[in-house]
Amino acid sequence: MTQRAPTGGEFAVIDRLKRRLPGPPAGETWIGDDAAVVGPGKGRVLLTTDATVAGVHADLSVMGLDDLGWRAVATAVSDIAAMGGRADHLLVAVAGPPATDLDLLYQGVAEAAAAHGCAVVGGDLSNATDLVVVVTVSGQVADDPGPVLRGGARSGDRLFVTGPLGASAAGLRTLRAGAEETVLADAYRRPLARLAHGEAARTAGATAMIDVSDGLGADLGHLARSSGIGFRLDDVPVAPGATVDEAIGGGDDYELVFSAPDVGRVTATFAAAGLAPPLVIGICTADASQRAWGDGELPPTGFEHRWS
Amino acid sequence: MTQRAPTGGEFAVIDRLKRRLPGPPAGETWIGDDAAVVGPGKGRVLLTTDATVAGVHADLSVMGLDDLGWRAVATAVSDIAAMGGRADHLLVAVAGPPATDLDLLYQGVAEAAAAHGCAVVGGDLSNATDLVVVVTVSGQVADDPGPVLRGGARSGDRLFVTGPLGASAAGLRTLRAGAEETVLADAYRRPLARLAHGEAARTAGATAMIDVSDGLGADLGHLARSSGIGFRLDDVPVAPGATVDEAIGGGDDYELVFSAPDVGRVTATFAAAGLAPPLVIGICTADASQRAWGDGELPPTGFEHRWS
Repeated sequence: MTQRAPTGGEFAVIDRLKRRLPGPPAGETWIGDDAAVVGPGKGRVLLTTDATVAGVHADLSVMGLDDLGWRAVATAVSDIAAMGGRADHLLVAVAGPPATDLDLLYQGVAEAAAAHGCAVVGGDLSNATDLVVVVTVSGQVADDPGPVLRGGARSGDRLFVTGPLGASAAGLRTLRAGAEETVLADAYRRPLARLAHGEAARTAGATAMIDVSDGLGADLGHLARSSGIGFRLDDVPVAPGATVDEAIGGGDDYELVFSAPDVGRVTATFAAAGLAPPLVIGICTADASQRAWGDGELPPTGFEHRWS
Repeated sequence: MTQRAPTGGEFAVIDRLKRRLPGPPAGETWIGDDAAVVGPGKGRVLLTTDATVAGVHADLSVMGLDDLGWRAVATAVSDIAAMGGRADHLLVAVAGPPATDLDLLYQGVAEAAAAHGCAVVGGDLSNATDLVVVVTVSGQVADDPGPVLRGGARSGDRLFVTGPLGASAAGLRTLRAGAEETVLADAYRRPLARLAHGEAARTAGATAMIDVSDGLGADLGHLARSSGIGFRLDDVPVAPGATVDEAIGGGDDYELVFSAPDVGRVTATFAAAGLAPPLVIGICTADASQRAWGDGELPPTGFEHRWS
């Protein structure tokens, strides 16, 4: 969060961005000093960071810079949701070409922060060829029950997903085909992290949880591998307008997949929180190599990284 | 900290990086889940993020990727030092070309983390054209005296710097001229954040503090503007081998500049902490437009950002 420019440009930009964002409560210091000062919370602290690279994670030919800013925040906050936590504070580091419309980008950042109930407390601006937005989130989670890790699923636990899948991938497909504004387009451009669902799953006894960022096949694979379990899926709920392939491999839906032993407790907890019941999609099995989907096998597909 | 790859490459990389870094204490979860879980500290929480872009903040023709990793950590931790705090946890987001030697980069990250007494608890890997390393630091600071902000300097306070300036810029210059390994080269490639000095300044009654990342002219200007004071400098301590211009405008030294009313208390506190006394370089004045240096004026030069 160093302000590196002695004069002119960057100061004006930072001042403008600061005015666009809500300010700190008494006793806290946010944007503009060397580091943000925030009060300690109760329970345990959650920390996560996530990079959104234009052209890799976000297609600027079908979305605005405000959408990219929104998406960068939602993607990072989703990792807090997947622990069953609450998102508190955001740091936003932007590296990109000098001509980048930072006001537009920060408009989306501010809208997403407000939508997810958290505050931007600092950031950094740098020059680079690519546009890279790295959002770091600090959050909190209670101690009992504590954060839901990836590795706690047990044989016999049911598998749940908080909503149908594939809308984001279908949105990208239809946007590239020239579609007008649609629900699917919003799913791609303005995803929402499932914070309330994650908290409900945690309090309902979830044993393992992950967000569907890469695709169900990939992310459920992570959960199964971390937990040392296999699974049998009866059903993969497909979002209206999406294909089965998009539901399994598309990713970027930010629904949560979790395991829990007691379907009735899960349903009741979600209802008490005013949330639609999560969909039961299968069961965890003792055979750690099992990846059954109906009569076949769930392909371990998903977002392909380019680091390999 | 999402692990996006379903198979092979990125998993292997993350596993390798994880093995290179120390693991968490009981009750905490670090690399490998959606978010890191860390215990709450006492006092107030400090958060800062800083991007290091190859070719902008770090010249890879004269430093290795391990040095870049080190520098990315030290730069970010320095913002915690400038608040008088302690650095606890690091998140490291790397976006870069697929061929980047991540092992070498993380070697430097791990060495710098150890040197600064903090732990890498998570990160993210993405593909991009440029190599961009964004390090986020979470730290702590006591309540009484609390964090040292930029805006608390008062007329009559003395100005201190924790060491002579210009070594980093001189190191870059000599490296580009083909120098062998030297103390100056290390100052550029392996800077150290002044955490102990920052804490000593805070407990010695510092009223404002900033790290010299952009250059004394620029950073002292930030402090003066935030505090609404001017200054008269008697002396700018120049590191052996550096020029006066490098001391004033070079930046990247990560010494701390601070204001405090009581020279004796500062000297005694530093001595009690086993630190060399900081150098008194001038005094804060009531004329907010004053930027006096000897008989002339301190140029507000420093690292030029490219966002303007």
